[in-house]
Amino acid sequence: MQSLVELKEFINGQIKDLPLPIEPKGLYEPFRYIMELGGKRIRPAMLILAGKAYHGTETELRDAAMAVEVFHNFSLVHDDIMDEAPKRRGKETVHTKWDENIAILTGDVMLIEAYKYLGRLSDRAFKPCFEVFSHSAVEVCEGQVKDLEFENLKEVKVEDYIEMIRQKTAALVGASLKMGAIIGGADKSEAEKIYRFGEYLGISFQIKDDLLDAFPEGENFGKKEGGDILANKKTYLFLKALELANEEDKAELLNWFAKRELSNPEEKVKRVKEIFERSGARKATTEIMLDYYHRALNALAETNMQDEYKDQFEELAGFLADRIS
Amino acid sequence: MQSLVELKEFINGQIKDLPLPIEPKGLYEPFRYIMELGGKRIRPAMLILAGKAYHGTETELRDAAMAVEVFHNFSLVHDDIMDEAPKRRGKETVHTKWDENIAILTGDVMLIEAYKYLGRLSDRAFKPCFEVFSHSAVEVCEGQVKDLEFENLKEVKVEDYIEMIRQKTAALVGASLKMGAIIGGADKSEAEKIYRFGEYLGISFQIKDDLLDAFPEGENFGKKEGGDILANKKTYLFLKALELANEEDKAELLNWFAKRELSNPEEKVKRVKEIFERSGARKATTEIMLDYYHRALNALAETNMQDEYKDQFEELAGFLADRIS
Repeated sequence: MQSLVELKEFINGQIKDLPLPIEPKGLYEPFRYIMELGGKRIRPAMLILAGKAYHGTETELRDAAMAVEVFHNFSLVHDDIMDEAPKRRGKETVHTKWDENIAILTGDVMLIEAYKYLGRLSDRAFKPCFEVFSHSAVEVCEGQVKDLEFENLKEVKVEDYIEMIRQKTAALVGASLKMGAIIGGADKSEAEKIYRFGEYLGISFQIKDDLLDAFPEGENFGKKEGGDILANKKTYLFLKALELANEEDKAELLNWFAKRELSNPEEKVKRVKEIFERSGARKATTEIMLDYYHRALNALAETNMQDEYKDQFEELAGFLADRIS
Repeated sequence: MQSLVELKEFINGQIKDLPLPIEPKGLYEPFRYIMELGGKRIRPAMLILAGKAYHGTETELRDAAMAVEVFHNFSLVHDDIMDEAPKRRGKETVHTKWDENIAILTGDVMLIEAYKYLGRLSDRAFKPCFEVFSHSAVEVCEGQVKDLEFENLKEVKVEDYIEMIRQKTAALVGASLKMGAIIGGADKSEAEKIYRFGEYLGISFQIKDDLLDAFPEGENFGKKEGGDILANKKTYLFLKALELANEEDKAELLNWFAKRELSNPEEKVKRVKEIFERSGARKATTEIMLDYYHRALNALAETNMQDEYKDQFEELAGFLADRIS
């Protein structure tokens, strides 16, 4: 059985050998650039692991793994344009290093190439994987548009926020696992359970991400503490604080989040964090995050895969959970 | 046999009944908007016609036709962002009516939905259509990036220009016909011939488009005369004029095309057109356009389809050729 580190190295090797054309450079240089920018390779690693758990063949798992990793990077390229993000993983984003037009087109061709990777699967696996993939691809877009819409809404319910991150982040994690299971020949019920494992894990991961932004632990993954607060981002923490805080704190929170240019950003972060804390929002957010984490582990426990694979998936969940407490 | 008008109405009917979700509105309202904005529906009409010529089934042809029409509209939404075009078909473009982020995401989900339409084909037709479609989808992106790159290049060869429009416009026309033929059960050689018909027709159509911009005939399709000239666009006409003009005219042409803000736009259009004329570029461009038009008709003649279908394809080519002389 391959370790997570070995899986990540395997995928990085595949990316290094990406059989892309040289020309037009305006398309394939940024394609290679974003793919080689690094990342945890969680989705393809999970896909391969699920596939092996159900005895899938190496070549098919590799191609499907590349499909999800290329798709994931497509979504990063387009999201970075929308978020006007200058950096990703400490390096320039595609639209900054090249320009917006190049970033739009690079993303487009990556989405098509992701499908082309799927096209290499056996006839047996191709169609069901195509359907799982397409379904989750639409969810990613729907999640992203909701994320944008929420920024302009006065009130967002925490349930709607969870549904947004389920679509934007968790659906593709679930789909990766399900595709691995399909390639491995798992039956429908198994594929559904492993999908749930990924989906719940993805949700808990994303909520943890919100928590870490305000309350970093250990090394802070190169992110600026309180970045979401300064960007007035409606995270779970913020929405929960609005729900739980007393009138005075709620007014103060809304007041801080109405400001764009600040002379005292540290003051804003400090005061907002205090409200997150004393309203009970931090505690409630930690609880919901752990709740999804345990739902994920329960779904995993219910599968029929061999214990050694369950152990490895738990390890992987724990690796993410280094971030999860 | 359905007439072209009937085919267009059939496709418009399909678009009217597009089974899209309501929410999120930020995604599906612009999707429906661009689809209903009109257009000639050339690609889906050709696909259905080719499919019928080879006895394809109605449902499959409809789904594949929708795949290419949705894909085509995806490319319009993203191209309009890149071209900063405020209008399309006399109406606001998606990024103007909504915003750029919405236009990026709408395009993305349309590309995925195009694939999902393909996913409805029978097992026999799905995989080969998926491959033809994916191949031409990559070509469309490559063509578009070359189009952008050419704007910043000092010298562009006319051959490279032809290759750019082949990828950007003609490949999808060819692919539409080939997919129809595949669904109809045509053999490889037939499918290849009908592909060439579409590809050559697409190239001649695009060159005609360049010609019409400078030298309009009859109604000018709502375009501004000399729009490409004012935008300093490197059309076939322009590139050919650089090749054929004497040194003095070449210098004047380059001088005009180096200008962005003009107090005398009509003067520029007039002078540039005179150079196009006396350099022989207009004549040479008309010749190459007709050359591709005849290559298209030859490829059509070589197919084994019944005469009534050949006649209808000639009529369709002629319909485009209303624009072709």
